[in-house]
Amino acid sequence: MGIKLGILGLGTVGTGTVQLLQDHVGRHPLLQLVEIYRVGVKSIDKPRGVTLPKEVMTTDLEAIVNDPEVDIIVELIGGLEPARELILKAIQNGKHVVTANKAVISRFGTEIFTTANQNRVYVMLEASVGGGIPVIQPLKQSLSVNRIHTVTGIVNGTTNYILTRMQTEGSSFESVLADAQRLGYAEADPTADVDGADAADKISILASLAFGGRINREEVNCEGIRQVSKTDITYADKLGFVIKLLAIAEKISSSFLSVRVHPTLVPKAHPLANINGVYNAILVEGDPLGQVMFFGPGAGAGATASAVSSDILNLIARLQYQQADDAPIDPLLGCSHQDYCQIAPISQLTTRFYARFLTKDQPGVIGKLGTCFGEYGVSLESVVQTGFQDELAEIVVVTHDVKEGDVKQALEEIRTFEAIDSIPSLLRVL
Amino acid sequence: MGIKLGILGLGTVGTGTVQLLQDHVGRHPLLQLVEIYRVGVKSIDKPRGVTLPKEVMTTDLEAIVNDPEVDIIVELIGGLEPARELILKAIQNGKHVVTANKAVISRFGTEIFTTANQNRVYVMLEASVGGGIPVIQPLKQSLSVNRIHTVTGIVNGTTNYILTRMQTEGSSFESVLADAQRLGYAEADPTADVDGADAADKISILASLAFGGRINREEVNCEGIRQVSKTDITYADKLGFVIKLLAIAEKISSSFLSVRVHPTLVPKAHPLANINGVYNAILVEGDPLGQVMFFGPGAGAGATASAVSSDILNLIARLQYQQADDAPIDPLLGCSHQDYCQIAPISQLTTRFYARFLTKDQPGVIGKLGTCFGEYGVSLESVVQTGFQDELAEIVVVTHDVKEGDVKQALEEIRTFEAIDSIPSLLRVL
Repeated sequence: MGIKLGILGLGTVGTGTVQLLQDHVGRHPLLQLVEIYRVGVKSIDKPRGVTLPKEVMTTDLEAIVNDPEVDIIVELIGGLEPARELILKAIQNGKHVVTANKAVISRFGTEIFTTANQNRVYVMLEASVGGGIPVIQPLKQSLSVNRIHTVTGIVNGTTNYILTRMQTEGSSFESVLADAQRLGYAEADPTADVDGADAADKISILASLAFGGRINREEVNCEGIRQVSKTDITYADKLGFVIKLLAIAEKISSSFLSVRVHPTLVPKAHPLANINGVYNAILVEGDPLGQVMFFGPGAGAGATASAVSSDILNLIARLQYQQADDAPIDPLLGCSHQDYCQIAPISQLTTRFYARFLTKDQPGVIGKLGTCFGEYGVSLESVVQTGFQDELAEIVVVTHDVKEGDVKQALEEIRTFEAIDSIPSLLRVL
Repeated sequence: MGIKLGILGLGTVGTGTVQLLQDHVGRHPLLQLVEIYRVGVKSIDKPRGVTLPKEVMTTDLEAIVNDPEVDIIVELIGGLEPARELILKAIQNGKHVVTANKAVISRFGTEIFTTANQNRVYVMLEASVGGGIPVIQPLKQSLSVNRIHTVTGIVNGTTNYILTRMQTEGSSFESVLADAQRLGYAEADPTADVDGADAADKISILASLAFGGRINREEVNCEGIRQVSKTDITYADKLGFVIKLLAIAEKISSSFLSVRVHPTLVPKAHPLANINGVYNAILVEGDPLGQVMFFGPGAGAGATASAVSSDILNLIARLQYQQADDAPIDPLLGCSHQDYCQIAPISQLTTRFYARFLTKDQPGVIGKLGTCFGEYGVSLESVVQTGFQDELAEIVVVTHDVKEGDVKQALEEIRTFEAIDSIPSLLRVL
């Protein structure tokens, strides 16, 4: 008596998943119960890295989610539609769902999980964040006995690859991006990665699990890495930092979270500073645990197939173990958040800042900067005149912990100073 | 209707666990179902960091495991006896068990899990390895869809603290150990830590979960860090390595594992090379996943309490969810290994070696070393005459991957050379 899978999509991850499931020797014995019953694709005739019986393949994805024989739908087509609609239909048909789709979960999670709970089925999403790193399940289960303070992640491999190469080679964003596209580490349209949307989807999901409430994806502050220059990477290095695109969810008061994605100066001794290339890492801080970090491949066929299959394994165990049809939802596998977390606007964030100014080489410029920052309550940790670019002096400022709103106001005024040519960079510091 | 806990032991971890459970706001809501029903201690009158009603405390531990009201026994007394006997009695009385006791599980796991399966109860052990790092559950569940090749861990905080300080300060083992004892990072009797037995207990447990079979703890090869000198740390540094006490479980053929603990030269770019101080990390490599690493506090009241409580949480969910008394054991929470893994003798290990020789300063010594190694099939990666100690020349050799037995035989012969004064160090290289 097998557990019948309907797999939607046979791209990289779908192929990796089928390969894993077809070759089960040496893996958890429960996987032997899996039957790859239907696989939905766009084009049947396309050559694939796996061999499947003809009758398994179909282009009719809707027929799969409506097939009463199917126990579990594995959604690997990505994107918002038709993924959302197929997932909802599968749930309404009483099927459990495994998905790797961070975009659909972060945007339509409320609708999806509400429908799942009404239909007493599970929607599993280990593969949606961190590729092969088991982080969703620990957040839902082991770590949830803690009061979580912060989840900080390097959750987008493409941008981490680009920043790592900019760091080690001293290259510009544009040249590394072009090379990454050539090598297949970045998409032809790199927007979702380099502008931070992918990381924002993922931190929405992690925040929801860590803080036990729904997250309105629209409220997540999101800045990408296009504005990170090799000049800033060099200055950061001299000051003892590396620049990483961090996705951060942080409890900033009893009722407010800060959820955000932005390039960040990370102290070199910080555990996330050494995560390089396409690797991902997620650091969770809580009470009484302290810090734990999960590190691993954030993407790729094998890693993602591992995460997808681990969700399938959990469902098989549940289906085997669950004797009665009316058994309650396992509270550690389900997702029953009712309320939305309140997310503070970014202006209320308290953090350190790094700012770089190009100024006319006049006496007293540093004094004027310091005075203006002071008037807005922004206290400075260091001010360094670092050199010259063309005719202009370059001044780098690192603040103490200050309110983002205050920094922005001070900068607005500073921008009007006659001596200020431009403010090419404003970055947050961990 | 609470779930009644009987906690055995109220030392550091017991106190941390009671503190966590008594203060459940902001944690997983299921923890509210916990009732701390009995706590067994040696001395009732000892001052404690927690307040408990008088009737909860008792010195009669056996009465707790025999009390029909108790649902879950939390064993935190450590050591072999009476821990083993109390755990077995609790199981026979139909109680689930949570334990942080790596010694008793690694030595008596077979007896304990067999009894647990007969009595349809769970024995949970997240806290036994890696303190607050969730690693037991991922190995049992998510990661088990992979074919695991290797589990490599820094799983003993005391020795990692000592080696880190030797590395950064250039101090000797003895002086750092004495300081660590003064600071409470090492026990008055440091044997179990510095001689590797604690790490060997832990890798036995990890190996059993990763490779799905029982491990005979006696077969685990175990070397500690007493013989690691500051001279070797300095040479390793120059060669691009740091020295770490690694616990390794590795599949070396279709039917054999290598399970061992020894100080190891780790390349500085390796993820484990940067794990410093009392932190632990466990690196798991498998197919198709690749590498994932778990990092966090390996000990301490809060971290360990987090792991203990996560096991309690899992049991509460199971007890809530399980409707029928005759429900089968959840295959992802239970432990049903039947067979022992075959462990290869250390002489069959294939790895790289680092050896340091003190020789009389005669011409041709390096040639003689190289020739003798060659005769035993040991090929060398590098041979460096590094300097002089007193009247003796110091020669450091790093081999390619070779059989341990061959190296040992070659060294036996080399030891007889007239020019060889001594071979102060032989270390494995990752």
